[in-house]
Amino acid sequence: MSALQKFIEHKAYNMRYWSIISPAQAGSGHTTTCLSAADIAAVLFFHSMHFDPEHYENPDNDRFILSKGHASPLLYAIWHQLGKLTDDDMMTYRRIDSVLEGHPTLRFPYTEAATGALGVGLSIGVGEALCAQLDKRDYYTYVLLGDSETSEGAVWEAVQVAAYYKLDNLVAIIDCNRLGQSTPTIFEHDVKRYSDTFSAFGWQPFIVDGHDVAELIKIFDKAKKIKNKPSVIIAKTIKGYGVELIADKEGWHGKALKSDQVKTALQQLKSKFPKAATYTGGYKWKPTLPKKNDRAIYTEHPLIRMPKPNFKKGETIATRKAYGHALSVLGDECEAVVSLDAEVKNSTFAEIFETAHPDRFFQCFIAEQNMVGMGIGFDRRGRMPFISTFSAFMSRAHDHIRMAAVGQAQLKLVGSHCGVSIGQDGPSQMGLEDLSMMRCLPESIVLYPCDGVSTYKLIKEMACYNKGIAYMRTTRMATPIIYDNDEKFPVGGCKVLRQSTNDYACIIGAGVTVFEALKAYAVLKKDSITISIIDLYCIKPIDAETIIIIAQKSSKKIITVEDHYPEGGIGQAVSHAVRNNNFHIEQLAINKLPRSGRPEELLALYEIDAAAIVNKVRKIL
Amino acid sequence: MSALQKFIEHKAYNMRYWSIISPAQAGSGHTTTCLSAADIAAVLFFHSMHFDPEHYENPDNDRFILSKGHASPLLYAIWHQLGKLTDDDMMTYRRIDSVLEGHPTLRFPYTEAATGALGVGLSIGVGEALCAQLDKRDYYTYVLLGDSETSEGAVWEAVQVAAYYKLDNLVAIIDCNRLGQSTPTIFEHDVKRYSDTFSAFGWQPFIVDGHDVAELIKIFDKAKKIKNKPSVIIAKTIKGYGVELIADKEGWHGKALKSDQVKTALQQLKSKFPKAATYTGGYKWKPTLPKKNDRAIYTEHPLIRMPKPNFKKGETIATRKAYGHALSVLGDECEAVVSLDAEVKNSTFAEIFETAHPDRFFQCFIAEQNMVGMGIGFDRRGRMPFISTFSAFMSRAHDHIRMAAVGQAQLKLVGSHCGVSIGQDGPSQMGLEDLSMMRCLPESIVLYPCDGVSTYKLIKEMACYNKGIAYMRTTRMATPIIYDNDEKFPVGGCKVLRQSTNDYACIIGAGVTVFEALKAYAVLKKDSITISIIDLYCIKPIDAETIIIIAQKSSKKIITVEDHYPEGGIGQAVSHAVRNNNFHIEQLAINKLPRSGRPEELLALYEIDAAAIVNKVRKIL
Repeated sequence: MSALQKFIEHKAYNMRYWSIISPAQAGSGHTTTCLSAADIAAVLFFHSMHFDPEHYENPDNDRFILSKGHASPLLYAIWHQLGKLTDDDMMTYRRIDSVLEGHPTLRFPYTEAATGALGVGLSIGVGEALCAQLDKRDYYTYVLLGDSETSEGAVWEAVQVAAYYKLDNLVAIIDCNRLGQSTPTIFEHDVKRYSDTFSAFGWQPFIVDGHDVAELIKIFDKAKKIKNKPSVIIAKTIKGYGVELIADKEGWHGKALKSDQVKTALQQLKSKFPKAATYTGGYKWKPTLPKKNDRAIYTEHPLIRMPKPNFKKGETIATRKAYGHALSVLGDECEAVVSLDAEVKNSTFAEIFETAHPDRFFQCFIAEQNMVGMGIGFDRRGRMPFISTFSAFMSRAHDHIRMAAVGQAQLKLVGSHCGVSIGQDGPSQMGLEDLSMMRCLPESIVLYPCDGVSTYKLIKEMACYNKGIAYMRTTRMATPIIYDNDEKFPVGGCKVLRQSTNDYACIIGAGVTVFEALKAYAVLKKDSITISIIDLYCIKPIDAETIIIIAQKSSKKIITVEDHYPEGGIGQAVSHAVRNNNFHIEQLAINKLPRSGRPEELLALYEIDAAAIVNKVRKIL
Repeated sequence: MSALQKFIEHKAYNMRYWSIISPAQAGSGHTTTCLSAADIAAVLFFHSMHFDPEHYENPDNDRFILSKGHASPLLYAIWHQLGKLTDDDMMTYRRIDSVLEGHPTLRFPYTEAATGALGVGLSIGVGEALCAQLDKRDYYTYVLLGDSETSEGAVWEAVQVAAYYKLDNLVAIIDCNRLGQSTPTIFEHDVKRYSDTFSAFGWQPFIVDGHDVAELIKIFDKAKKIKNKPSVIIAKTIKGYGVELIADKEGWHGKALKSDQVKTALQQLKSKFPKAATYTGGYKWKPTLPKKNDRAIYTEHPLIRMPKPNFKKGETIATRKAYGHALSVLGDECEAVVSLDAEVKNSTFAEIFETAHPDRFFQCFIAEQNMVGMGIGFDRRGRMPFISTFSAFMSRAHDHIRMAAVGQAQLKLVGSHCGVSIGQDGPSQMGLEDLSMMRCLPESIVLYPCDGVSTYKLIKEMACYNKGIAYMRTTRMATPIIYDNDEKFPVGGCKVLRQSTNDYACIIGAGVTVFEALKAYAVLKKDSITISIIDLYCIKPIDAETIIIIAQKSSKKIITVEDHYPEGGIGQAVSHAVRNNNFHIEQLAINKLPRSGRPEELLALYEIDAAAIVNKVRKIL
């Protein structure tokens, strides 16, 4: 047995020790899943990976993503063994004042990705590996998955795209420990099944005994030499390995050991690994540092300047097209920008960016979850990902977007084809819940421009926003330019488009309904009924102050009108924001499951058009 | 060439004809994707499928799911050829007064599933095939997928589960036409790749020329004879086949032909298929009717009676556990009930149902999208699916849930582990956006019981609800029983738990915050400050009437308190519902990304506990 092997087995032993102790101390946590993966983790960190533990953010470090986030005690044990956490730190696991959370978050500085929803990590790894290719860096990205986790479809989206991009700098490891949370996994210990499926999708599979350190060392070395395709290491393991009390037994998934059980467990661990337990050193381990690389680092985005747009008032352009144009210009100014598309680039107009910057455009095919996961990876490695698809299909990636928010990723999401105004394609293609979904993310901003100028300007605002997820919804149909090229659109603002000294109501719209409000204004004006109009281009944060001022002057009456379901959209956001002002508020929104039809017919049928606004104003006069 | 073959080729010709004409008339629609699949559809409907076109709802009919929903003109052309649509009907495609929508919805009576979001149909098919097994019926379920569509991870979730359940009554067809919407597909015409991947997951693959009717007939016959595993027919096709103008050309995905192009196209179609175009009959086709089967049909659920529960006031039980218990009792009373679980049955307590009714419990593994899709299939075939996982992971299936709403499926969804009150597992496991997501579905109801009695009673309400999706969120921690076993909990109601003649504010809570409000009541009472308390067990539809009455009597002040993000939850629902009453409203909610900690610590940290309520009441006195 080599000195290195003995050393690694000792490290794995220590990791197992702490994977028992930390959860036991906390009274909860997933010990058994750590015990199955400890040897893999020890070989990775103390042999295979090239990284500088003193400088986690070194852009050339190999990267490790714990996709099976419930094995968080193992992650903390790794960094404890690397000297970055004390024994006392380890005893704070899951405490409210500790960064050692139940599932890893970015609060722990050595976390590559916040995980805990299964099936997200591999996509983040795909994003990082692709980013390495783009940045011409040599680092490898390692992703440790659970076997249960591979039931998640998102994993197979990542598998397909990783093979497509020939990511030979990506290594997935399946900790095939046979047992899920409540039942054996779908394939149990049929490791050949995993090998066959990954292989069929174009990956290089390796099957290995996940508790044989010498074999693991060899296999990880082999994986590094594979060219033009990603590797997967299918490690046959035992859940709870090393502790007879819990090894390969159902009913121990999410459980910590009680104090008397801890005693037994530690004794069993010692008898299982007598040499590793009594290892007294002799191996001078030093991290293998990555080669230096003086390529640009994009983490700190420079002050972004975009030239003034050049739209003409009255000419028409769809905001989705203005988005493609703006993104392309932003790409000229900011090298960090990348564009990810789910095979709808000719609908979202991401194709304009692709034409201008083909090297920074990534086709993700119709696999929205993986696309968003890749975006998290690009963001983590310093790029600025703009991710676009139909707003309706953002819902496909809701959990990934939620996890991006948990991981404080600065994603820029753009959903096209919002609302019934798309017309004939029908309800399955209409984004009618996206405002609700995106508003409900901590630290998010939600934008909804109505014309080309505001779209262009807001793309810059999205680029500059650095606190969380920025979302923009865009419209299919062309709309007229109503703003000057000099107009400013700060986040948290709105635009007062009509106002007089004697308004009967304040109409709040956004996107297509702004134009319906303007039409209603003209109709009512003929009867000497004046209304104020607000373009609520920023739905979150909402400009309550301006709305309150304008509504106060508009007979204290507000009518919201939106191409979205009633719940969680503009109407309810406004109602809540101005709730303590004794206003009368009416909401026009899509109140039932819509259908196919021409856009103008649908706006009328669901009563969010000019006629509906006129009727509502007359009703509340 | 057999007479049958000539007949089918003629039918395929007619379907192509109408797949050109209908979209051209509408001015939009997807012609080319219909032309690639016309031969497959013709063989299926005029040879392979056993069904009674006069009685679509015959429970023994073979089933056809058009997963590639954008090929809707083909679906309508099929039923036109079966005599169920007139030429005039075909000319109404995509019109606002037509049931022939842009993507199929249930408004068209011969639609098996509303599709249009890709990657949903196969899961619905898995549900139907499994339902056939359960019901001991002989029908086959055929699912036609696009090749681009197989990039969606949800497809691979379905693939795994179908193989696990050995669904030899399920046949998937991949229309491998090489071209996506904006770019070639990931594998283009590499049909072996599809064959290898399906095969690796345990399916029986067949590769066939998708335009060779004789071969298609043979292959479909073969597929029916496969035992113990599902079959997939990988049909190599040409997008736009039969019309040279558009065949195998990029840029024609979502386009209808213009009138001059139609003329050319029809000429080219005729020259391509001269015999089929001039076919004059001679084959007396009759549908092959399914064998009669007198097994129970569950479509009309009988009046559901559940025995009175037997909880004792003051004893504690988690609502998630009360759910498992109630579902098991419901299962005793109602044979239609099935339970679907995403490998967390010991957390959601679906395992109680499994123990009582193992034959009606289906393990779906960690694949929430497919689980929901399966539920749509079970519902469509007359069963009553209760689908449970963590509330946080309902977001993984958001698009499938959205499509279930588009398809008017009566799913019963139960999300456990809501909110920060789960404690140490941390933010990735906390459902904090589920109320927002579920409220924003047309026709949905959203329930949130606080104790065992209300949970039990509301499960019955969910079973009886027949207009759309019913959602219940349940809590991890045990809570005391506060209601009598006789108490009634109608949908759209709420419970007034405290009220006096001199209340300073009305506290509206649900779930865990009900108990915090009760604690706050006791504290304030000592200072002679009385408050009213509402348990808002039904979030949608909201009982605005009762809230307004109680708030009127509570100094016109409302404090909402919820274990959910602020947007789209209880606070904003209440603000909106009572907006025109000049109330003062305060909202207590989870205002930032939470962290790990003990439940009571987290309720305090994020200010939704009794102390926060007390403070807020004192502040607005």
